[in-house]
Amino acid sequence: MARWEGNTQGRLERAALDLFDEQGYDRTTVAQIARRANLTERSFYRWFADKREVLFGGGDLQERFLTAMDDVPPGTGALPTLLAAFATAPEVLRPRDFLERRAAVIAANPPLRERELIKLVSLSEALTAALERRGCDPRTARLAADAGLAVLRLATERWLADEETDFAEALATGAAELLAVTAEAAPQRG
Amino acid sequence: MARWEGNTQGRLERAALDLFDEQGYDRTTVAQIARRANLTERSFYRWFADKREVLFGGGDLQERFLTAMDDVPPGTGALPTLLAAFATAPEVLRPRDFLERRAAVIAANPPLRERELIKLVSLSEALTAALERRGCDPRTARLAADAGLAVLRLATERWLADEETDFAEALATGAAELLAVTAEAAPQRG
Repeated sequence: MARWEGNTQGRLERAALDLFDEQGYDRTTVAQIARRANLTERSFYRWFADKREVLFGGGDLQERFLTAMDDVPPGTGALPTLLAAFATAPEVLRPRDFLERRAAVIAANPPLRERELIKLVSLSEALTAALERRGCDPRTARLAADAGLAVLRLATERWLADEETDFAEALATGAAELLAVTAEAAPQRG
Repeated sequence: MARWEGNTQGRLERAALDLFDEQGYDRTTVAQIARRANLTERSFYRWFADKREVLFGGGDLQERFLTAMDDVPPGTGALPTLLAAFATAPEVLRPRDFLERRAAVIAANPPLRERELIKLVSLSEALTAALERRGCDPRTARLAADAGLAVLRLATERWLADEETDFAEALATGAAELLAVTAEAAPQRG
């Protein structure tokens, strides 16, 4: 995982997060972000449509996951398909220190939390639809998407907490934990 | 499960949903709802703080679930605890025909969808915290809440689709389906 870049985009992101942190998201303007980064507003708008895009633009997980699902052999189970796709997350996730500061800004701002939730629901719906296109029945597709996103969240938390974590291993660990939690509740068979 | 009541609350709900359906949620006023129900605005405000409350007030699942969790014997697993609590849902869920029409209004209105999502996240957080108070470690608590809500959604869909469905049975079926989906992805053990 690359460190947070010192390039133009990285400088703008860092300046924006510093200001969101110091004076709040709402009070921060694009002009202030550009000034703090020693760049022009014009430079800002080459990278981001507005200040919210600093938090929500960038590496598109959804697009990466859907592409990765196309590479999974047909006949693979629903959840294994998702986990194989999720293992590509480190290719598009922003650097850890960016993600941690981003999470703090979003947690402090209800409209941003709503935006984040809606993005998550949109991801869940896109994964469900992609599983259905692979021949999965709708109920299983939805359940696998729910289960997969729970495992993805766990794996991402582990990966954020420990630099040495391999993302695919963290996903496998999360799946094993979900299995343990679920097995306790399912009725005995036969 | 009781039929939709013909009492004051039921008449106001029905009038509101008719109007939301006919002319849209945004264009509907409290005055119109009261008039359609042959009641006064004052009657409306005895039951609901505003028109949004017609959709989001009423039976409080979260409160019912948290109370029901207190009755589950200590030492019960995390997901079994949640499923035992969820089995009380039919006591507070509004009648099926109300829920179906409510879902259609919410699906058609993005701010209402956001409100619904936020309510769901709040429920998830409350369940996680309640499991932690029972001694569950935070990671397992969160995973069980995610898994439980996926199972609850499945069970509710089944229950809405078929009047004869027993809610506790639908929950057990959902848990078995989640187990089947998850078992496909978990690594082989030793």
